Amino acid sequence: MSVDYKAYFAEHRETHLNELKEWLSIPSISALSEHKGDVAKAAEWLAGKLTEAGLEHVEVHQTAGHPIITADYLHAEGKPTVLVYGHYDVQPVDPLHLWETPPFEPAVRNGKLYARGATDDKGQLFLHVKAVEAMLKQEKELPVNIKFCIEGEEEVSSPNLPLYLDNNKDKLAADAIVISDTSLLAPGKPAISTGLRGLCSLELSLETANTDLHSGSYGGGVPNALHAMVSLLSSLHDEQGRVAVEGFYDGVLELSPEMREEFAKQQFDEDKLKRDLGLDSLYGEEGFSFVERVGARPTLELNGVYGGFQGEGSKTVIPKEAHAKITCRLVADQDPQAVLDAIEKHLHAHTPVGAKITFQPKEKAFAFNIDPSHPMLQKAADAFENVYGTRALFTKDGGSIPIVEKLSSTLNAPAVMMGFGLPDENLHAPNEHFNLENFDKGLLTIVEYLKLV
Amino acid sequence: MSVDYKAYFAEHRETHLNELKEWLSIPSISALSEHKGDVAKAAEWLAGKLTEAGLEHVEVHQTAGHPIITADYLHAEGKPTVLVYGHYDVQPVDPLHLWETPPFEPAVRNGKLYARGATDDKGQLFLHVKAVEAMLKQEKELPVNIKFCIEGEEEVSSPNLPLYLDNNKDKLAADAIVISDTSLLAPGKPAISTGLRGLCSLELSLETANTDLHSGSYGGGVPNALHAMVSLLSSLHDEQGRVAVEGFYDGVLELSPEMREEFAKQQFDEDKLKRDLGLDSLYGEEGFSFVERVGARPTLELNGVYGGFQGEGSKTVIPKEAHAKITCRLVADQDPQAVLDAIEKHLHAHTPVGAKITFQPKEKAFAFNIDPSHPMLQKAADAFENVYGTRALFTKDGGSIPIVEKLSSTLNAPAVMMGFGLPDENLHAPNEHFNLENFDKGLLTIVEYLKLV
Repeated sequence: MSVDYKAYFAEHRETHLNELKEWLSIPSISALSEHKGDVAKAAEWLAGKLTEAGLEHVEVHQTAGHPIITADYLHAEGKPTVLVYGHYDVQPVDPLHLWETPPFEPAVRNGKLYARGATDDKGQLFLHVKAVEAMLKQEKELPVNIKFCIEGEEEVSSPNLPLYLDNNKDKLAADAIVISDTSLLAPGKPAISTGLRGLCSLELSLETANTDLHSGSYGGGVPNALHAMVSLLSSLHDEQGRVAVEGFYDGVLELSPEMREEFAKQQFDEDKLKRDLGLDSLYGEEGFSFVERVGARPTLELNGVYGGFQGEGSKTVIPKEAHAKITCRLVADQDPQAVLDAIEKHLHAHTPVGAKITFQPKEKAFAFNIDPSHPMLQKAADAFENVYGTRALFTKDGGSIPIVEKLSSTLNAPAVMMGFGLPDENLHAPNEHFNLENFDKGLLTIVEYLKLV
Repeated sequence: MSVDYKAYFAEHRETHLNELKEWLSIPSISALSEHKGDVAKAAEWLAGKLTEAGLEHVEVHQTAGHPIITADYLHAEGKPTVLVYGHYDVQPVDPLHLWETPPFEPAVRNGKLYARGATDDKGQLFLHVKAVEAMLKQEKELPVNIKFCIEGEEEVSSPNLPLYLDNNKDKLAADAIVISDTSLLAPGKPAISTGLRGLCSLELSLETANTDLHSGSYGGGVPNALHAMVSLLSSLHDEQGRVAVEGFYDGVLELSPEMREEFAKQQFDEDKLKRDLGLDSLYGEEGFSFVERVGARPTLELNGVYGGFQGEGSKTVIPKEAHAKITCRLVADQDPQAVLDAIEKHLHAHTPVGAKITFQPKEKAFAFNIDPSHPMLQKAADAFENVYGTRALFTKDGGSIPIVEKLSSTLNAPAVMMGFGLPDENLHAPNEHFNLENFDKGLLTIVEYLKLV
């Protein structure tokens, strides 16, 4: 490098971290309507930073939900165009009592920045803003054309971005879509995700009576909504952890020996995972390793179940209703709508006597997969190698970024998922954090990538 | 009657109702520690009314929990002594959104007084205070000796009254213990309960990991506390609604033809119950009618289950923990401790792979039964007949008043359970109410009883 970016980023590190902390302190929880103002504030904050970085045409687009932000710097004639996608919204934070420091009071401990959104995705997205700013300040130009398209609804499955993409294909046209919203395999072991699981979700309500009832006067003689709900929910899996819904696995690809070999390369330490998470044992479908289960197999998870009395002490009530929130991660060619239909059919078929259910389908997204031999992915692996000293592995990620498949197909460009998080950074959970070693190396890797493409 | 009590109570009806409303507006929820002050306030309110009524030795006794109130009027030499037992504490009120009017803003609609505690038990207990007051005001004396022993912890299974009873046997000695905390069979069909179910309760917690996890990164590869909990809880019943815990039914008496005949006399309308409660069907053990299931069979009820995300929208979390609150109603010779032990053993034996459970036993009470031929019960049936025009049936009540067995055995006196509620008055549920027809008739029935014994 003719310019010493390492020195530049070291010199500006405190300023950069303070800026990021400021952003992280805005509780931009897209799922909760009471935070709508905070989400808008986080959007405006980012637009300000994009402008400060030297980007042009910084625009905040209002949508039916939360704003979309675009910006560009298109002065590298004849060079490729890179579109940076990311999101400034964050997950809810409960259970709050499990956070060691409050989720919206960012704190650095042991080289890690703790806050909701620290790694998913404000922290990672921030790297792109500061990498571009550094290059523009140091070199007065960029070696590529760059565009940003940032949304505030990724954590609620991007309801409004698809329409914006459809209406702005030319404006957003690019040779690669770069996304930093995934993880390294482990410290010092970079990875480029070539697959994301799809998603579908639903809410289930169950009702047995028109009022809660006293267990003394009625107990033993009337249906109990919680009994019906636990019976119904327990029918969704068999004892081996396999989803027991007929048709659920339609479209799932059997793992080829080559794919199993690729997974084995990760040399994933299952014992360490158990120790780290305090697990008695791993759990899941028979015949698959942990990385195979998460990377190449679908799952159906109960995310929330509730009904009846939750307060202190006891209450001898027979609850009239119970509720469950369910999400599925999908792989290969599973059709999210077909999966939802299969679940709905299963739930109706297994509803216990005396109960009525209400099935509300929510998000839907197909799985995404890309061939790792694409030059834009190979250059990302080069960039990682130049900074981390080790070439990135091409992996399948268990998470879903529902918009990636839509971005890639609409703009007809490869999605380059170069993530700087770590798998144990508690994203979507209490004590989310971002390892600052990857904050530092992430900035350099992005600069490197923009020079290589 | 030489004195026209009907006219007296009609004349004072508005005053009496306003007083009761004042009492009902005090949220004396014994289960919730934040209401400790309110419980104390409700106790002081009652002590004031007992004094106003003309009772003597009105005392408020502090305990390790909520206060016990005693009072007496012992000037009927050679006459029997009646001890009135009741409670001024109430159940919690959630789910609050299901109340048509706020639980602590008493309101009369269609001849019914709506409020938490309206029927259980402030409303019913208030009748005794006003009946005694009326007799003392009108006749300057009582035809019996009367004592009051009122507690504020019935809804949390009376943890402190047993010790007080043991230490005050002489002070509380009586020929009958009168309790109005049960129900008529239906409007116009009085009943005297000769049986109460026992009770035991527990809280169950289940943990799988030391942190909530992201379903993308881990889903399909690690245990989910909610999956484990619904599987564990669904193992507690078989598909016919029978409790599947080994040893649970030990001590339960088979129903004799005579007992079945007694139950049949109630001519209980199961179709009306279904319509009233909006039930698709009744539910419970095969081979028993509704009144038999509730009156003579034990039950195990999930009162609350919760874990994971309950907020608006979705959250792709794998919860680390889940919780359940469980109560059992017991009959005949079931030993509450043995039942708790059997459940604990069952839960440990059925805990799914990867989960750890914590079992916390809570309340324990034996069932209570009394022979209906006792003269003090027959006189209560006479009193009902004189006011309602129809003789009371002797029934088995499905509810539990854990202290009744203790009161009766400690004081060696029959418990006379003459209740003035109705089965559909939503006790322990939203929209609890008290039918004012039975408020009026209850006052007269109590006066009548005190004259007859």
